[in-house]
Amino acid sequence: MDGRTPESQSGTTSGGPVSADHPAILVVRAPERPGIVAAVAAALRDAGATIVDADSHTDRTSGLFLQRIAIAGADGGDLDSSALLPRLLAVQGAFALTFELHRPTDAARLVLLCSRHLHCAADLLARCALGELDATVVAVLSDKPEGRELAERHGVPFEHLPPGDDRAAQERLVGDRLAALDPDLVVLARYMRVLPGWLTDQWFGRMINIHHSFLPAFIGADPYRKAHERGVKLIGATAHYVTEELDAGPIINQDVVRVSHRDAVPDLVRKGRDVERIVLADAVRWHLEHRVVVFGNRTCVFA
Amino acid sequence: MDGRTPESQSGTTSGGPVSADHPAILVVRAPERPGIVAAVAAALRDAGATIVDADSHTDRTSGLFLQRIAIAGADGGDLDSSALLPRLLAVQGAFALTFELHRPTDAARLVLLCSRHLHCAADLLARCALGELDATVVAVLSDKPEGRELAERHGVPFEHLPPGDDRAAQERLVGDRLAALDPDLVVLARYMRVLPGWLTDQWFGRMINIHHSFLPAFIGADPYRKAHERGVKLIGATAHYVTEELDAGPIINQDVVRVSHRDAVPDLVRKGRDVERIVLADAVRWHLEHRVVVFGNRTCVFA
Amino acid sequence: MDGRTPESQSGTTSGGPVSADHPAILVVRAPERPGIVAAVAAALRDAGATIVDADSHTDRTSGLFLQRIAIAGADGGDLDSSALLPRLLAVQGAFALTFELHRPTDAARLVLLCSRHLHCAADLLARCALGELDATVVAVLSDKPEGRELAERHGVPFEHLPPGDDRAAQERLVGDRLAALDPDLVVLARYMRVLPGWLTDQWFGRMINIHHSFLPAFIGADPYRKAHERGVKLIGATAHYVTEELDAGPIINQDVVRVSHRDAVPDLVRKGRDVERIVLADAVRWHLEHRVVVFGNRTCVFA
Amino acid sequence: MDGRTPESQSGTTSGGPVSADHPAILVVRAPERPGIVAAVAAALRDAGATIVDADSHTDRTSGLFLQRIAIAGADGGDLDSSALLPRLLAVQGAFALTFELHRPTDAARLVLLCSRHLHCAADLLARCALGELDATVVAVLSDKPEGRELAERHGVPFEHLPPGDDRAAQERLVGDRLAALDPDLVVLARYMRVLPGWLTDQWFGRMINIHHSFLPAFIGADPYRKAHERGVKLIGATAHYVTEELDAGPIINQDVVRVSHRDAVPDLVRKGRDVERIVLADAVRWHLEHRVVVFGNRTCVFA
Repeated sequence: MDGRTPESQSGTTSGGPVSADHPAILVVRAPERPGIVAAVAAALRDAGATIVDADSHTDRTSGLFLQRIAIAGADGGDLDSSALLPRLLAVQGAFALTFELHRPTDAARLVLLCSRHLHCAADLLARCALGELDATVVAVLSDKPEGRELAERHGVPFEHLPPGDDRAAQERLVGDRLAALDPDLVVLARYMRVLPGWLTDQWFGRMINIHHSFLPAFIGADPYRKAHERGVKLIGATAHYVTEELDAGPIINQDVVRVSHRDAVPDLVRKGRDVERIVLADAVRWHLEHRVVVFGNRTCVFA
Repeated sequence: MDGRTPESQSGTTSGGPVSADHPAILVVRAPERPGIVAAVAAALRDAGATIVDADSHTDRTSGLFLQRIAIAGADGGDLDSSALLPRLLAVQGAFALTFELHRPTDAARLVLLCSRHLHCAADLLARCALGELDATVVAVLSDKPEGRELAERHGVPFEHLPPGDDRAAQERLVGDRLAALDPDLVVLARYMRVLPGWLTDQWFGRMINIHHSFLPAFIGADPYRKAHERGVKLIGATAHYVTEELDAGPIINQDVVRVSHRDAVPDLVRKGRDVERIVLADAVRWHLEHRVVVFGNRTCVFA
Repeated sequence: MDGRTPESQSGTTSGGPVSADHPAILVVRAPERPGIVAAVAAALRDAGATIVDADSHTDRTSGLFLQRIAIAGADGGDLDSSALLPRLLAVQGAFALTFELHRPTDAARLVLLCSRHLHCAADLLARCALGELDATVVAVLSDKPEGRELAERHGVPFEHLPPGDDRAAQERLVGDRLAALDPDLVVLARYMRVLPGWLTDQWFGRMINIHHSFLPAFIGADPYRKAHERGVKLIGATAHYVTEELDAGPIINQDVVRVSHRDAVPDLVRKGRDVERIVLADAVRWHLEHRVVVFGNRTCVFA
Repeated sequence: MDGRTPESQSGTTSGGPVSADHPAILVVRAPERPGIVAAVAAALRDAGATIVDADSHTDRTSGLFLQRIAIAGADGGDLDSSALLPRLLAVQGAFALTFELHRPTDAARLVLLCSRHLHCAADLLARCALGELDATVVAVLSDKPEGRELAERHGVPFEHLPPGDDRAAQERLVGDRLAALDPDLVVLARYMRVLPGWLTDQWFGRMINIHHSFLPAFIGADPYRKAHERGVKLIGATAHYVTEELDAGPIINQDVVRVSHRDAVPDLVRKGRDVERIVLADAVRWHLEHRVVVFGNRTCVFA
């Protein structure tokens, strides 16, 4: 989803037939320059493409222009990529832009990493089963044994990868399994181990974590206990792309829920679960629909 | 704001100098057709206009294409309207579009209508005084005497227009005063009288009301009492353009706040005041920034 | 509320051992009179009961006093019901109060009724499996066949009760099955049929429905379509006890989510699903924890 | 809390007549012990006091019992303090509790400290003028000259206390003026200077600050810029009692608002203003109604 069907420099084409209900998604990124909107729009028009939906943003600080366009062919039908790609490549040359063109694909392939707290994994599995997410969970990996029953109930292979005495060996194993499974997206669904930089680098932009606080407050372990000690009146959750620095990657989505003096730590944990679930599920859906563009350490979310 | 500086068919130009921080706003409305985005963007490019911000929407039901573009001249400087208007008029002919081009103007001129509950009027007056709204309240009209002190504290003329025995006469008087004051926008800031159709027609799209419920629940009088009787767990407020049918005009903004069994009617009234204030203030700001486009009985809000 | 362990007039005692973490719940309801709080508190103290948590409310309109007290025995240990009940009965006589004393029980037994939209049923099943709700789903009944796979994945019996040509016969069948299953609570998890009055009367206070709008707006069928047509900027969901009049029973919980002109009806449906899930799950949990007291057509929620 | 009418150890009585609509507020604080609720309730009953509203909380960590009771006399009439106080003092001896009894007073006297950003000060002044807060602003102090017009428009004395070259001298002057004005509550309404410990100690529990972030994220200067750099998707505000350590005092109230990539720092500033206003106004109201109890570095808010 994140690079499986990008047809940029290479110009290759893949993915299924396009329609107004299943449009292709063009993501453009370029230094801001007058005429860029007109040039992209003209390329689409000349290729017979219909704009189903469009959103754009120019970041004033960096002068970066970002655009997401949902496109179909003439009259909302299939798109003629052989007509479109040369035109986009011509614009690319003139405006120093990069683009990705994602045709509709089969359901995205997800791998979930989890530990003992299974509510986020359970929620994503249920959404896939209900058709709310256009995705298939191809494996659940965990450093703990608890998730097996959940995964198997959904017919999904479960792999228990305990760290034992050798942390680095377990990390290599996780890396090997992810490489072999080759998913479109890895979701850390309350996986309670810090991943090494070589692994987060490898999956940057294709690995989403849910942290159970309103970042940057309460980074690291035990955020609900810390929130209780500080006496905050709201608790939150944050979905972000994973980077080497703990809980510091580009934020995709956040939300909070009101709490009070009546809420002890277990109440915060319970109330936080629903926030975590929904913040993560929305982040995953936006990612799969190519609505999230990372720039610097920030995200543009065309939602 | 709403038609004071539209440079559409007429092609006339008014308003002050344009810059990237004070862009002109182009609002486009047309039946959806391939090539329209490219045509508008090309017209802007050819006129040397820079796109500072753009947002668009196509309503699938009606096939209506709506677009709001903030534009400046080359390098973010002033805009050459004499170059732009002919090009927009050419696109207009080819695509059956209508457009409004709003150059930055002086502060918009508001008239507030109120009755006994003054919190919304007080809030708008304070926002104008603080510079949060780029607007000036030119008069406060009321069917009750209570608002005088508030208005005069802000140096704004207050006009008491009591209905007496002759409701129709009072309505004609309100209409006359609005016509004479000729504001950019009329805000019904908890004005507790129903206006006649001839008056709402005259000001359609330039008259905003705040209703103290989450419409369409609790239309008409005493919504907080009705909400209490029904035992709802949230109360809300709705800002909408005024039409002849009571509380049925196009909705611009809504929000709610949580209430509980502890809240008697006066508590609902109190909690509702903050929702009313903010829902109305945002609606007024969006209107003044040409972010609200009415189509059918609905609005598109490019916020 | 659930009727399984009310020890009121009858004075019978059931349920498991009490502790500070698993307190008994005393729910008191009486016409407001001075001294009632002191009398109840003295009865508890004299019986050696510790107050773990207490909340109360007096409805000014009806003069009704409502109280929920979580109690354990001395030092947070087990409660001596034989000491407590006579004392409560004495207060009952003096103050015209009614009370329910709920000792901690085994997991509550739920029956879910659903139709084609399975997200609420799936959510409740997942929460039971994760231990978030202290409840067991003993059966899923549906007028449609779609829920079978979901129920069976969770090891829960599924019963397909199609209406065929005889609506009344299907209603009797539903009533018979509920009577036979004898659950603590019936949840209409997007069950799309109106139930007859004889059935809703029978289960009053023990049957919760989720309606997919912010009631009283958009009662009845197709609320998301109606919301779209009205152009509202928030959509909501309402959990309420079921009464004969459609969507008019006492409201337990409501929430909303922001929507915009970009959201077509299917988007409202999708966004609404998360609101429905959480509004319903909280209502069910509050009910099971004896936090909801119905008075008139309203509820007091000690949450 | 405000210290004006506490009738605790001293047993003195002040304040005006009590009624059901203007009840006296009894705040109790004691180590948790069985029988305390019964003892307090019996004392009230025996003194002929009616409980209008009651809320309590036991903090499990510290074993601290906190209670707020709104009381009137028999039949909701005036309260006989000479009957009540001896009985409360007797309970105090038996249960090691401390209590404050606040009879309804005249409007509380507030002093506002502000700097350049005047929206919070303007909001509090407007709420006092509208009668939404039962309070009078007796002075506005500022290290900047900007607030003068605002204060004078409301007929409130404005004092400009610029720091000049001698920071300590200005702090002494602020301390002297507060001591002389002797308000019930000091509100730091976006006062942009850090106060010395001797001054915050002196006013502890009677001085509320509004910080323009969701604490503990973004402590100190420029929180909106920091929030923008981190790319958060929500921004917030926090009202707290002031302590020597910057932005670390007991939190009374917090809220957030959703932001997006479209929001540059000035947009965050603008959106944050409404959150700041309402978070602060609610905190001030709760304080004045004796709804906030500080324990450790946390608060219990009986709202």
